[in-house]
Amino acid sequence: MPEQDTKKTISFSRQVPEGDGRERDVCLNCGFVNYENPKIVVGSVAFWGDRILMCRRAIDPRRGHWTLPAGYLELQETPEAGAVREAQEEAGARIEIDALLAIYTIPRISQVQLIYRAHLGDDRIAPGPESLEVGLFTFDRIPWDDLAFPSARWALHHFAQSRALHGFPPFTNPPGETGNLEVGGL
Amino acid sequence: MPEQDTKKTISFSRQVPEGDGRERDVCLNCGFVNYENPKIVVGSVAFWGDRILMCRRAIDPRRGHWTLPAGYLELQETPEAGAVREAQEEAGARIEIDALLAIYTIPRISQVQLIYRAHLGDDRIAPGPESLEVGLFTFDRIPWDDLAFPSARWALHHFAQSRALHGFPPFTNPPGETGNLEVGGL
Ligand SMILES: [Zn+2]
Ligand SMILES: [Zn+2]
Repeated sequence: MPEQDTKKTISFSRQVPEGDGRERDVCLNCGFVNYENPKIVVGSVAFWGDRILMCRRAIDPRRGHWTLPAGYLELQETPEAGAVREAQEEAGARIEIDALLAIYTIPRISQVQLIYRAHLGDDRIAPGPESLEVGLFTFDRIPWDDLAFPSARWALHHFAQSRALHGFPPFTNPPGETGNLEVGGL
Repeated sequence: MPEQDTKKTISFSRQVPEGDGRERDVCLNCGFVNYENPKIVVGSVAFWGDRILMCRRAIDPRRGHWTLPAGYLELQETPEAGAVREAQEEAGARIEIDALLAIYTIPRISQVQLIYRAHLGDDRIAPGPESLEVGLFTFDRIPWDDLAFPSARWALHHFAQSRALHGFPPFTNPPGETGNLEVGGL
């Protein structure tokens, strides 16, 4: 019995499937149509008193840099539940959602981010497998020069602007900002 | 040269890929991992004076029933641009986004819906390939008994509630409602 080749080449070609109006990636091996869709990232700016929960990333991209607890929404999960799960997984934190803080879109990587304002139930936090460390920072002590993503910076500033607000519309990308990573562009 | 079998069976099996914590669909033919993600639907309640734009569906599911112009967000598209595109494609309408009206989640089908409040630039509308007909309805003339989806009903009511509001937080699913289609359950 031949050893199974588990490294079989996976090749997709751009084709317009029958009944569709757009080019999609079609697998040359088996015809599977990979309908790629934008991805939803859910996360939170979670506070405990005057301090904000942040995580230092243990994974690429931007390993070693600080960000907010956030990740991909899973199937059959509500965005609020996803944001709660990510805070638990990445920072061992139990958060309660307070409001939708912001919707950011990063068109280049087809990402829609739903960032919630939340509060911590207590200050027991611990890094999960995707975090090198976690911390609670007052606004002026946030590692501003060491943030992982532009949208983390946006969310922290929008959170500060939102502190006095109730029933506000979600913030969006700052004017003209695409969220693309650029060296020195944070 | 053998005729190519274009009907080759596509079989996926539930496996936990290396470095992942969850079961995913892995193609038994070629090893492709299908990371299924929740899908983003973008749409609008678009008004012209006191009338609201609606489309009668030419496609399944719920062919023949009325709904709002809405569809899947495409790659590298902002949600606002997607809502504008769907109104153009399905109703030949030129809309301008006014506010984020609502975020609904239908966990059973892993859908997050971003529904915008919008206004029409003019009253020239025409059914696109996915619509049997399109119409502009005053609130009391909406085909309430013939709506395609629970979320269309929610959005129409939330739109009515939002008319006097500026700078409001987006509405969400009515309490306890999952958006599942049930016979007579609209
Ligand atoms: Zn394949
Ligand atoms: Zn395959």
